Amino acid sequence: MNVKFCQYCGAKTEKKIPKGDDHLRDICTQCKAIHYQNPKIITGVIVEHAGKILLAKRAIEPRYGTWTVPAGFMELEETAQAGAARECYEETEAKIKNIELFGVYNTTVNSQVYTLFRAELDGLHFTETVESLEVKLVDPKDIPWDDLAFPCIESALERYVKEMKTGFTVQLEDIHGSFKGARSTGYYDS
Amino acid sequence: MNVKFCQYCGAKTEKKIPKGDDHLRDICTQCKAIHYQNPKIITGVIVEHAGKILLAKRAIEPRYGTWTVPAGFMELEETAQAGAARECYEETEAKIKNIELFGVYNTTVNSQVYTLFRAELDGLHFTETVESLEVKLVDPKDIPWDDLAFPCIESALERYVKEMKTGFTVQLEDIHGSFKGARSTGYYDS
Repeated sequence: MNVKFCQYCGAKTEKKIPKGDDHLRDICTQCKAIHYQNPKIITGVIVEHAGKILLAKRAIEPRYGTWTVPAGFMELEETAQAGAARECYEETEAKIKNIELFGVYNTTVNSQVYTLFRAELDGLHFTETVESLEVKLVDPKDIPWDDLAFPCIESALERYVKEMKTGFTVQLEDIHGSFKGARSTGYYDS
Repeated sequence: MNVKFCQYCGAKTEKKIPKGDDHLRDICTQCKAIHYQNPKIITGVIVEHAGKILLAKRAIEPRYGTWTVPAGFMELEETAQAGAARECYEETEAKIKNIELFGVYNTTVNSQVYTLFRAELDGLHFTETVESLEVKLVDPKDIPWDDLAFPCIESALERYVKEMKTGFTVQLEDIHGSFKGARSTGYYDS
């Protein structure tokens, strides 16, 4: 992604390596501000109730119509777990309790880091929303493995289902797979 | 932090809540691009050798002259652990092995998330660098607790020293403390 104009003064930028740095940065030709770009955090949560897992069918791009666990871009001034709970509410109206860290997932293909949590459904309310075409509790044997939104979600659900029997751990994973449309949204202009 | 000018076309932005959103964003008055801002990841590593921990004295702001473990802003297209190893090399010239996730730390005061790892020193080389006034292996009983750079580093080292005896875990922690100068660098203009 290129920062073509300076966010502080509006002048054009140029690609240069700042003194003491070793990465090309977009530097303002006028005020000399350096526009660093860094990975973004996606924060999400696997919500369980009575042995079933809460899945949502995406009503937004990318991956419209595929299934996922609630997750989205972390906002400024919130914790990763608060962000996961917020995304869960926005996408499904479900409230959650007993939230615990489940994993950290590097998806270098689009420079994202997922912080994924696990939690229990707090109350029995959930519903479709503007972000989700459908929301339901799914038995692990009925997870639509061929119709999940992102490789990271697939990997996390695989481990979650396994660890429902063996006990939960916290793992670091690198996700190398991509998916059609991964860079097609307004978030990327590679 | 305000994005005053559009990074794509250079026109002025205005603060508005986009349709379907609930946060104020900086939106371009001309091309309508939305400039999202999200937390940044600091990735770092606690390096151990023969029961001692590698500490570096900061040669850069913020917190010039205080002690820390190697850590810094994660770059695009790297994993969090690769970033931690890179920062370790840049700050101390130390190479590391057997890197494992140690914790995720929310520092909401400056909208950062730390991914902290633990590792062993690979070889015995380390040295001061342009980023570190001094680099040394420190016995846990000699850690300069009153002279550490950031609350997150203090919290992580406290747990690390405790877990050297009891076995390591992976924890999620919220860091509420701030420090003088936390918002004084070019990274922030709150």
